[in-house]
Amino acid sequence: MASALKRIIPLFDRVLIQKAEAVTKTKAGIIIPESSQAKVLTGKVLAVGEGSRTESGSIIPVSVKVGEEVVLPEYGGTKLTIDDKDYFLFRDTDILAKYKPE
Amino acid sequence: MASALKRIIPLFDRVLIQKAEAVTKTKAGIIIPESSQAKVLTGKVLAVGEGSRTESGSIIPVSVKVGEEVVLPEYGGTKLTIDDKDYFLFRDTDILAKYKPE
Amino acid sequence: MASALKRIIPLFDRVLIQKAEAVTKTKAGIIIPESSQAKVLTGKVLAVGEGSRTESGSIIPVSVKVGEEVVLPEYGGTKLTIDDKDYFLFRDTDILAKYKPE
Amino acid sequence: MASALKRIIPLFDRVLIQKAEAVTKTKAGIIIPESSQAKVLTGKVLAVGEGSRTESGSIIPVSVKVGEEVVLPEYGGTKLTIDDKDYFLFRDTDILAKYKPE
Amino acid sequence: MASALKRIIPLFDRVLIQKAEAVTKTKAGIIIPESSQAKVLTGKVLAVGEGSRTESGSIIPVSVKVGEEVVLPEYGGTKLTIDDKDYFLFRDTDILAKYKPE
Amino acid sequence: MASALKRIIPLFDRVLIQKAEAVTKTKAGIIIPESSQAKVLTGKVLAVGEGSRTESGSIIPVSVKVGEEVVLPEYGGTKLTIDDKDYFLFRDTDILAKYKPE
Amino acid sequence: MASALKRIIPLFDRVLIQKAEAVTKTKAGIIIPESSQAKVLTGKVLAVGEGSRTESGSIIPVSVKVGEEVVLPEYGGTKLTIDDKDYFLFRDTDILAKYKPE
Repeated sequence: MASALKRIIPLFDRVLIQKAEAVTKTKAGIIIPESSQAKVLTGKVLAVGEGSRTESGSIIPVSVKVGEEVVLPEYGGTKLTIDDKDYFLFRDTDILAKYKPE
Repeated sequence: MASALKRIIPLFDRVLIQKAEAVTKTKAGIIIPESSQAKVLTGKVLAVGEGSRTESGSIIPVSVKVGEEVVLPEYGGTKLTIDDKDYFLFRDTDILAKYKPE
Repeated sequence: MASALKRIIPLFDRVLIQKAEAVTKTKAGIIIPESSQAKVLTGKVLAVGEGSRTESGSIIPVSVKVGEEVVLPEYGGTKLTIDDKDYFLFRDTDILAKYKPE
Repeated sequence: MASALKRIIPLFDRVLIQKAEAVTKTKAGIIIPESSQAKVLTGKVLAVGEGSRTESGSIIPVSVKVGEEVVLPEYGGTKLTIDDKDYFLFRDTDILAKYKPE
Repeated sequence: MASALKRIIPLFDRVLIQKAEAVTKTKAGIIIPESSQAKVLTGKVLAVGEGSRTESGSIIPVSVKVGEEVVLPEYGGTKLTIDDKDYFLFRDTDILAKYKPE
Repeated sequence: MASALKRIIPLFDRVLIQKAEAVTKTKAGIIIPESSQAKVLTGKVLAVGEGSRTESGSIIPVSVKVGEEVVLPEYGGTKLTIDDKDYFLFRDTDILAKYKPE
Repeated sequence: MASALKRIIPLFDRVLIQKAEAVTKTKAGIIIPESSQAKVLTGKVLAVGEGSRTESGSIIPVSVKVGEEVVLPEYGGTKLTIDDKDYFLFRDTDILAKYKPE
């Protein structure tokens, strides 16, 4: 991983995510028209903040871990371009779901 | 159930729901015009998040269980298309009611 | 009561209500013009949710009971059509008042 | 008092009020033009709810009692027409002031 | 003070205030043009409510006392015309400042 | 300081501030065009309120003291003209920063 | 550092930041067109406030330290021009991420 990417620490309950490439071909190599490409946006967790703060200041850790595969909303997230690649910061509470490892 | 669907874990108080098909024919086979089809949207709970967090960080479990039949609002919910089938993520607090099992 | 209606459990602080028919005739059978029909919308409580949650997660029961006659606001409520009859889900805090039994 | 009126129990921190008739004549019988009629809207408390709920669910009683004379804002309140007479439901916190008994 | 005025008790954290007349002449009797009349709106506290309520229901007394001179914002406040004189109800938190007695 | 100014006590977390005159000439007497005059608005604290209240009613003192030099936002604040001079009331939380004494 | 800059103390959870100059040339001296200049806005922390206050008044320190390199959102922040140089005040919660030191 690029060094800048390795050094980045999201703040609070932000999560750094690399979005999965859209699957444009079936396993048999047939091109999938955009309209029927999977609507589920997924991504991989690269780094997580320490968590959000309660009213009294204690910290609630985020609910995803580095390496986990997550389901993302269609909109939202802050784009960070590091070494010419796009990554995204999402708030923990905006991430829809995660996948149990296969 | 498709493997991807089995692996999905909604986050926080989100609930994954499969909407019931609209009843378009009476038991006697008569086609029900759209306007008088049941206005009650129902669905089945496929997976639930761990629950919402209180201000102090403790977790309040969601109020529906996997397998329960629920009553949904006409609008809202986030659509997830997995293996070409549409599923919906609702927040626990947006689900209107549930049915005691028959 | 229809079986589907009997099985329904409102969630959180929602209350299932059957609105009273508007009184369109006086006891002597005289038709009351719409404009002077009682402006007070009343209804009967058919089912209640377990209640709303406090910030710390404990439950506050709703303030009306099944069978009680309640006063409803002119607007609001979610319509549920079950077995071709209209029922309404109101939040406990939106119900204006209730009547002591006669 | 009409029986329906006697049976009504406002919910939460709502207060049932009968607005005072606007004083349109001086004691000497002179008609007061609308523009200079008392701008202070007053009314009498007919019934009170049990009170509002704190975040933890305990009840804070309303700050006015049945029979007290209160000062009302120019707008707001929910009109209830019972037995062809208009009454108003105000939230406790919307009532501006009250009068010490004469 | 007029009897109605003496009987009025503001509710919650409301404060009844009599606005000071705008100073239109210098001590030497010279008329001050409106534009350079003091922009500071002041008034005298005539009556105070018992105070605002905390989330848990306890009462926080208002921060001004009867008889104190206060500085008012240019806008806001609810006008009450009692015995043909205008008085104003302000929320404690909307009053800008007060003067130490001379 | 004018007597009225000496007697004023801001309420809650308000802070009375005298804005610094904009520096229009360099020390060498050269006139600085408006566009490059210091963009930092500063002022001196003349009086402070007792502080803001927490939810439970206890008081949090303001974070600046009388005599301190503060950095102000470009907009906001309530203007008070006392003895023909303009002063400003700012909320403690709207003041951007302060200067350690030289 | 200019003296005025050394004396400034941000208030509450504000953080004083010097934005990094946009990298307009590659190491080999080739001019990078604006459109492909790094989209990640970074900056260095010059001073930090004591932190934000919880509801009960206790202080939560900010999550960045003086000297740390931070990632900033594209918009937001309050510009302060001190000694003809632009600095920015950001709220701690608006700062996106920080870098581990190289």
